[in-house]
Amino acid sequence: MTQSPDTPPLTASKAWQQLARHAEGHRDIDLNGLFRQDPDRAGRYTLETDRLSIDFSRQKVTPETLTLLYQLAEQQRVGQCIHELLSGVKINTTEDRAALHTALRSDNGSLIVDNINVMDGVRAGLSRMAEIVTALHEGRLRGWTGKKFRTVINIGIGGSDLGPRLAAMALHSYCRDDIDVHFVANIDYQDLHASLGSADPETTLFIVASKSFTTLETLTNARSARQWLAEHQCMEPARHFIAVTTNQAAALEFGVDPGNILEFSDWVGGRYSLWSTIGLPVAIAIGMDKFDELLHGARTMDEHIATAPLQENIPATLALIDVWNANFLGAETLAVIPYDHALSLLPDYLSQLLMESNGKNVTRQGQPVDYDTGLIVWGAAGTNGQHAFFQLLHQGTRNIPVEFLVAVNPNVDNADHHEKLVANCIAQGEALMTGKPDNSAEPHRNFPGNRQSTTIMFDRLTPAVLGELLALYEHRTFVQACIWDINAFDQWGVELGKVLAGTIMQEFESGRASGDHDAATYRLIERYLKYRN
Amino acid sequence: MTQSPDTPPLTASKAWQQLARHAEGHRDIDLNGLFRQDPDRAGRYTLETDRLSIDFSRQKVTPETLTLLYQLAEQQRVGQCIHELLSGVKINTTEDRAALHTALRSDNGSLIVDNINVMDGVRAGLSRMAEIVTALHEGRLRGWTGKKFRTVINIGIGGSDLGPRLAAMALHSYCRDDIDVHFVANIDYQDLHASLGSADPETTLFIVASKSFTTLETLTNARSARQWLAEHQCMEPARHFIAVTTNQAAALEFGVDPGNILEFSDWVGGRYSLWSTIGLPVAIAIGMDKFDELLHGARTMDEHIATAPLQENIPATLALIDVWNANFLGAETLAVIPYDHALSLLPDYLSQLLMESNGKNVTRQGQPVDYDTGLIVWGAAGTNGQHAFFQLLHQGTRNIPVEFLVAVNPNVDNADHHEKLVANCIAQGEALMTGKPDNSAEPHRNFPGNRQSTTIMFDRLTPAVLGELLALYEHRTFVQACIWDINAFDQWGVELGKVLAGTIMQEFESGRASGDHDAATYRLIERYLKYRN
Repeated sequence: MTQSPDTPPLTASKAWQQLARHAEGHRDIDLNGLFRQDPDRAGRYTLETDRLSIDFSRQKVTPETLTLLYQLAEQQRVGQCIHELLSGVKINTTEDRAALHTALRSDNGSLIVDNINVMDGVRAGLSRMAEIVTALHEGRLRGWTGKKFRTVINIGIGGSDLGPRLAAMALHSYCRDDIDVHFVANIDYQDLHASLGSADPETTLFIVASKSFTTLETLTNARSARQWLAEHQCMEPARHFIAVTTNQAAALEFGVDPGNILEFSDWVGGRYSLWSTIGLPVAIAIGMDKFDELLHGARTMDEHIATAPLQENIPATLALIDVWNANFLGAETLAVIPYDHALSLLPDYLSQLLMESNGKNVTRQGQPVDYDTGLIVWGAAGTNGQHAFFQLLHQGTRNIPVEFLVAVNPNVDNADHHEKLVANCIAQGEALMTGKPDNSAEPHRNFPGNRQSTTIMFDRLTPAVLGELLALYEHRTFVQACIWDINAFDQWGVELGKVLAGTIMQEFESGRASGDHDAATYRLIERYLKYRN
Repeated sequence: MTQSPDTPPLTASKAWQQLARHAEGHRDIDLNGLFRQDPDRAGRYTLETDRLSIDFSRQKVTPETLTLLYQLAEQQRVGQCIHELLSGVKINTTEDRAALHTALRSDNGSLIVDNINVMDGVRAGLSRMAEIVTALHEGRLRGWTGKKFRTVINIGIGGSDLGPRLAAMALHSYCRDDIDVHFVANIDYQDLHASLGSADPETTLFIVASKSFTTLETLTNARSARQWLAEHQCMEPARHFIAVTTNQAAALEFGVDPGNILEFSDWVGGRYSLWSTIGLPVAIAIGMDKFDELLHGARTMDEHIATAPLQENIPATLALIDVWNANFLGAETLAVIPYDHALSLLPDYLSQLLMESNGKNVTRQGQPVDYDTGLIVWGAAGTNGQHAFFQLLHQGTRNIPVEFLVAVNPNVDNADHHEKLVANCIAQGEALMTGKPDNSAEPHRNFPGNRQSTTIMFDRLTPAVLGELLALYEHRTFVQACIWDINAFDQWGVELGKVLAGTIMQEFESGRASGDHDAATYRLIERYLKYRN
């Protein structure tokens, strides 16, 4: 969906203006009072699927707030946006592409884009993945000395790293124990070095995951991996590499066997690519059946967003509350606190998903925005965060919406630990909202309370639950973008740094700064050149 | 230092008001213009020690801004605050304690507090640490079957975890390879389970680190560790535990040998405790000599803050710039981006240090503040962050001061990787500031630039550099607190959650919610009770 150029700016629109007026009398609203007024509030403001229960009753919304937010969604044509997403419209206009991550987990027979049935490619990709996973698990894929692979090192960064890394860690209880999967992303050699340190070259398989197969970090690490194999007298390095890329030619040139190249389509955005062949390390770790369950879970959420009415639509409702917090209640960040050690990477993963998607300052029509877009996402696993930064959540001066996640039942069984974990999760949401007035004439013991949070609860962190949860965050990100009228699928903001780094690398090679830089940059380059060994 | 009750509120004070007026005409200041006006800006706004070079020339400050900020520091008596910190005044008034982390790395013969020479205890603690480290390395400490310890698992959380964990990871190049040191913090059993999975009970030593020896997470994990030893027929569990605590009685009751209890003083705050016996796992990992170098590095910064005039005082200057960003330019967060994979935990560590210290809403006199205090600290290692959230830094709508850290020379040698790493670090600061106007009529390619950052450069991440760097952040945190007139050393804000978690745990045990909760809390408890296995 694109709006016509003469549409009024978002902030001048009727729904936005109504919300702005509503917010004026609302900033000091008392959450505890809302609960007293409405005994059914907790149930009314809990949305559920078969797997997830999302309680947003501790958000600072009244029935009127929600009515106005849903009007904003109607005005911004969220329903049509979702339809366009799911049906393959080229909504990523700056790159003239569709954003078809939902097709990757679809069981539809066909979805025609540019006269091509994209489902053919999706099925072919999954089928190739299954072949590789089976061959690896059955020991038909072997290294140059004929030994079975025991270690898989995924070399990728950003979207080719965070999704698979998160999923492999989250589902560690489902991982096979005959194969270790590592993830290397950083161009800092310490990252690759640590993984190589525990690996045996004869039994190590590298996956080089880069959409363009030109990513500086990934290619630098892949070359060093090849070098490491050579130093260990590997006679057939091609047997030790699989490439996942849209650029077959570059992978061939690197030295990957044609049979070891997994392709994917250019309409798969990096941060939405876990579901594609980029998910290969996950499928290797947990097996193809469990990977299918992950896709199935995500598909459930795709069906939900496509069919649920706005008022029951979970991604849409959570996105609208994000907008409410960001644009009307002045929140700048969202703290994500998974009470599940296996989800420790979720804040990092969501930081990429939400901030790279929606950290934008022009509308889909190229107009500068005059409102805030993407929230800063941060956080840490509970209970660890409680002993680190929760002091500021409870007694700091900042307005920080918190999102808790917790499983009723643990994957690694220990009732005593898990009961305490869940109790702490629930208690933190309670403490943030209810607070506790200082009765001791010791103001430092006063808890103002009235701080908003959302709690997402699920039975157990299975592959299907994880899939549904991540798809929920993807769609929530997309609905935010619809409201803000921005393109969630490009990332032009990362280009300038790449260009400037290229220039500086040349200067490092030549041994002198060119002088085309600002004085601070020039001075830092000079300092590096002077002191490097 | 405490101000008298009739001192005007900070925001009404002369220096604050002057800054507020100055800021009015300053919000749109053009960083690139400042560089054009002053060719010496980069050098003028770089402060150095023998080990660190800190370039804050890309912060939005003019000579006048700095003059006014230093006036604010004078008004808030920063010099006296520092003197009181270093000399053992009980500046942690709500707990009636000094904050003597600087004594832990001091080489002074004496420092008298409450008629006791605290340096005696400091030396005794270091001496006990050295004995244990030596006995362990020489194989005189052994498990119940007489085997040498190969694995050390530190069980602690918050301040008893993040500092040692950060230091052990940062200094991994200096770590002995005959002993593995693990860190377990979370009450989620998955955390301990992962460390136990790779450990041999006969050769595993547990350090239980808890100031009070009552921390729920730490004691729960310690009991499970004891249980694990019992399940493996360990005959002498006491040989497998060292306690680091101020509560000797509780450690004895747990079953730790009197000779295996390392004490520390109650004037060591958790998040400032790396330098105390809490640092034991680090000393085990890198050896006592290198641990001494870490202390020495910190001491250098203690001497710097004690003696450098305000205008050359690095922690004070950086703290004042934090205040400028937070209170006058509207920044809510600080993004910390170490271009050093070994410092990947630095954002988490600083999140605790800065947010737990300064996430406060009452002054030292117990008056509510009417200005913002602690910034939200977040971030990730570069270059990883570039491929995750940097889109929002470059093209988002938010004002985010960024702090880069980078070593000229790597600990793990690979010139190709390291050169690219450094080039990317420098290029990101350049891109954030210089931006790039859109010349292509494609607004999504426009980089507004004018975004502030600081770059900290050092030769190589040695123990001494790490010590100096962390002490710099400690003192910067303290100077922020002096300016904001808050107590950086208490953390009352974490108490309420503990109490409420205790109630909920009892309800989990009894199998029913008490009904004393708000409806959302009640519903979450009921859901857990209904669905738990």
